[in-house]
Order: sequence, then structure tokens, then C-alpha cells
Amino acid sequence: MDDIAERVVAGDVRAVARLIRDIDDGMPEVREVLKRLYPHTGHAYVVGITGAPGVGKSTLVDQMVAHLRKEGKTVGVLAVDPTSPFSGGAILGDRVRMQRHSMDSGVFIRSMATRGHFGGLTQSTRSAIDVLDAMGKDYILVETVGVGQDEVDVVKSAHTTVIVVIPGMGDDIQAIKAGILEAGDIFVINKAEREGADKTLADLRLMLDMDQKKYEGGKWRPPILKTEAVFDKGVVELLDEIEKHRKYLEQACGTLVPRRRKEKVREELYDMVKNRLIEEVLTKLTETGEFDRAVDEVVEGKIDPYSACDNLVLPKIKPFLE
Amino acid sequence: MDDIAERVVAGDVRAVARLIRDIDDGMPEVREVLKRLYPHTGHAYVVGITGAPGVGKSTLVDQMVAHLRKEGKTVGVLAVDPTSPFSGGAILGDRVRMQRHSMDSGVFIRSMATRGHFGGLTQSTRSAIDVLDAMGKDYILVETVGVGQDEVDVVKSAHTTVIVVIPGMGDDIQAIKAGILEAGDIFVINKAEREGADKTLADLRLMLDMDQKKYEGGKWRPPILKTEAVFDKGVVELLDEIEKHRKYLEQACGTLVPRRRKEKVREELYDMVKNRLIEEVLTKLTETGEFDRAVDEVVEGKIDPYSACDNLVLPKIKPFLE
Repeated sequence: MDDIAERVVAGDVRAVARLIRDIDDGMPEVREVLKRLYPHTGHAYVVGITGAPGVGKSTLVDQMVAHLRKEGKTVGVLAVDPTSPFSGGAILGDRVRMQRHSMDSGVFIRSMATRGHFGGLTQSTRSAIDVLDAMGKDYILVETVGVGQDEVDVVKSAHTTVIVVIPGMGDDIQAIKAGILEAGDIFVINKAEREGADKTLADLRLMLDMDQKKYEGGKWRPPILKTEAVFDKGVVELLDEIEKHRKYLEQACGTLVPRRRKEKVREELYDMVKNRLIEEVLTKLTETGEFDRAVDEVVEGKIDPYSACDNLVLPKIKPFLE
Repeated sequence: MDDIAERVVAGDVRAVARLIRDIDDGMPEVREVLKRLYPHTGHAYVVGITGAPGVGKSTLVDQMVAHLRKEGKTVGVLAVDPTSPFSGGAILGDRVRMQRHSMDSGVFIRSMATRGHFGGLTQSTRSAIDVLDAMGKDYILVETVGVGQDEVDVVKSAHTTVIVVIPGMGDDIQAIKAGILEAGDIFVINKAEREGADKTLADLRLMLDMDQKKYEGGKWRPPILKTEAVFDKGVVELLDEIEKHRKYLEQACGTLVPRRRKEKVREELYDMVKNRLIEEVLTKLTETGEFDRAVDEVVEGKIDPYSACDNLVLPKIKPFLE
């Protein structure tokens, strides 16, 4: 264990790759390693990049990496895709596209597909961020697909969250509005050479205007940028805005890393306790066969599921509840 | 308690409305009522209708209700929208649209916005379905917004799941593909009068063709229908397909209600145990102040979150684990 943690801190790429895979696979052993890595975290700046499939997130991330590397920053990239096996191809495609960085030891790229494990996506991603942080990366770019609740939770781990849309998404902007508008620190209209970019810009601006009160008193109002990632247009400007947001956070929070601020810690610990409980108790209930027996009884109509649940849960935690 | 359960079974609309609101609000008292209602469930046929915002789900549901009522069937409608307060307007709008049924005692319509409660959307929706089932409705239409994991889980509670798209959604079809293709029993292209309907039809057909193996040996292959819900076109055909799917299920499963088949029960009980555990233990940890102390210690750097989690969880369930 110690050995793996030491190797991660020393920047050993293989140790990091294996640890992240173990996290993605939900291996309980990783916990001890993460405990040891924790004191080495807190230095990296974490940027979340999220948006629907097809908006060009990977290309954008690829260009961001290139520019950050030019400035001498080291970069970790986590591509998080919780969707079904269907999108395995997309992930592979992305990785191929990013191959130009594959010989650069200052860049570490990994995709995660965590699904259905205890703890889920948010927890795994947080832990993987901790690993890249402990590994010494200056920037960690977390790319997530989609606009669901999972993605919102994931981007909450980021210092700066970039929401990527493309012109003419119409209903999709509505979906973003409903879901993760609140989570966006910077909006990017990628593929801005396409028709409708100005309309999309106006729509987004209107959305932010509706929330104008939130931004009064010097609060950060999310800028809206146009980019053409494939032509490397607007990417430097995006990095500048991220830097501005970082400065804003430093001033507002009085610390380099608001990731460890109280509300973040509260949320993280809450999720962790929740997932741990489920893992421990449900594993045990499954191993002992109690859970299967209860299922059979409900199927046979001997008991209702609500009472079956009471019987499974309450005796286990009774001493604690008293 | 008994009283509420009895009133629900007797079809008392006010008792049902209040109970569903209590479920939506995550009130623990509802559990006892649900236990009593359970023996009265298992008669309703549950149809899930899901799709991105703006595809016209509500109009479609509205027309389906009208036709089912003409056939003398009683109908319950649950409109489930887990997105942020932003879409409150949409829900209100939908309800206004459905007002033509509001004086019809054979129809019961409720929207739920469950978010952030212990147990979450899936659990609340399952319980609300149980309530409408116990109330005696013949059909329960569950309308969900979006294509995320939550929606997939929700539609798993349905006997027949209808996925609604509109022409020219492009990337959105990809998103559906990645997320809930597997969950669709019937695909509907609504607003089929719009340009691109045939392209969308071809895209969907191709998607299903890719999975052709799954449908061999007499397995149900999802039909694709075109509808124009505002003009009431194609709605009767949709109901016919739902009926066909129902007959298919009856034949395949040898029972009217596959909702209570073993794998469904297993999944339902699993979620229930999980949510119950979290509710009981985290409520207690919060009440005793233990959780807050742990958060402070992590913020102050006295302990890492992984160890703090161990300390919070393990002693509580230790007797059980031994």
C-alpha cells in the first residue's frame, strides 16, 4: 500500500494508471492508498468541462492541454463517461485524438466509465482527482458527457466549470438551463463558425440576465465565449477566463483551493458516508442470503416490500439508533 | 393511518393527493400507509412516457388519456420532473393543458418534483404508482422529462415504456442511444409533420437493426410510430401498440403484471434498503452532531475524509458486520 502511494506521489505513471483503474472498478483496497495520498493533495487547479455529446469537448480539452503545456504547466485529464457501453467507441475515439500528448510526460490522460459501483461516479471522480493532484499535476481537466444530475455532481468537484454548447441546440439549451445552468462558471459556444452562434449567444445572455441579481455586489457573472476548437480559435481566451475565475475565487475565498472549503467537505463526506454504508451493509446482506430470502418472500406475496425493508435494515442498525 | 389507506382504496381523491404529496416530500410516515396499500396493488397497467423537453410528451399524454377514457378505462397520470425549479413553469403549463380532464373523476393527474430527498425520484415514483394502483386506476401513465439515469430508473417501473423524440434531433438521438435505448418498448416520433421525420425514422430503425439479435426468437422488437399529438394523429395507433406489448408481456411472462417479477422486486427492494439505511443513519449522525464535528476536523486538516468516513460508519454497524 505505502509503496503505491509513494510511487503516485513520485509521479509514477503506471502506479497512477493502475490506481485510477482500481478506483473506477470500485476496489475497496484503494481507500487505504487514498488516505495516504490525501496530505499530498490540494495543489492542483481543477477545471470541469461539460456538455452534451457532440459539442466538441474532447477537441477543446486537447487544445487546452496543448496551450497549458506551452506555458510549462503539467496537466491531468479525466474523461468521465457514465453512459452505456454504446459510447465506448466515443471514448476510444477521444483517446486516439489526444494521442499527440501521449509521449509527453507532463500530461496524463485517463477515461473513467464508472457505473453501478457502490459510490458511483461522483465519488470515483473525486478520488481520481485526488490521485492526479497528489501526483503533482498543476491542472486537472475533468471532461464529462451530458447534462444530467450525475454530471452536475461531478462538476461540483471543480474549481471552475466550463459548460460547452454549440449553435442551434434549441431545446438542449433549455435542458442545460433546467439542469446545470447554476453550475456554470464559464459558457463556451463551440463550433462558433456554424450558423446560429449569435442566436445561441443571445439566448445564453438572456438566461444570465434573468439571474442578474445573483451577480450583483461583485459576484462572478459567467462570461460567454465563442470558440472553434478544431481551428484552435478562442482557446487561449478561454484559458484567460479560467485564470480570471481562479483569481476571483482566490480573492473571494482567501485561499488557493476552495475545493476544501467547508461546504465542499460537507458534501463530499456526506456522499462518502452514504456510499460506504450501502457498500458494507448490502454486501453483508447479500452474502448471508438474507436479501435473497426477502426478495423471494415479496415475490411469493408473503410480505410487502416496505415491511421487508424494515426487517432487513432496522435490526442491523438498532444498537446505533438507540 | 388506516384511515388514509382505506380512503385511498375507496378512491378518495383528496386522500390520494395528500399521500402523493407526502411521498414527494419524503415524509417517513407514508411508509406505514404504503404497507397497508400494497395488498391492493398489482392491477394497474403502467406506461412510461419519456423524452427530452419540448418533444410534446404532455400533449401526447393528454390525448392518450382522452382515448382511454372513451374506452371507459380509468387513468392516473404522474408527471415526474426532477429538474430544478426552473421548470416549475413547464409543469404548471402542462397541468393547465390537461385541465380538460380536471372535472373527470376517472382521471387523476399529479406532478412530482422529488429532488434531494432520501430515496430520490425512483423510490417516490414507485410509491406513487402503488398509490394510484391501489386507488383502482386501470392505466397509470408516468411522464418523465429527459434522458438521464434517473429517468431510466423511473421507466423501469413501467410495463411498457414509450420513448418520444421529434424530427431532426440529431445529437439527441445519440444521447438517447447511449442512455435509454435499451429501455424503450415503443418509439414515437412526435411532431411528425415536421421536416426530417423520415430521416429520424431511418436513424431509429438503423439503431434497432444494430441490435437485431436481441429481437430474434419472437422477442419484442420496438415498433416506431409517427404521431402528431396536437392534431390527435397516431395516438390510437400508439395505444394499439401498447396493447400489443401488453399481450406480448402476458404471454411471455404468464402473468398480467410483470412489475412484480423477481428481477423487478430485487431491484426495488435493493433501492429501498439502500435509501432506508442512508436515511436512518445519516439523520442520526446529523442529529448527534457527529457529522458536523467530522466535517470540521477535515476542514482543519486534522484528518483525511477517507478516515473520517471510516470513523463515522464502521462503529455503527460493527455488531452487524461481525
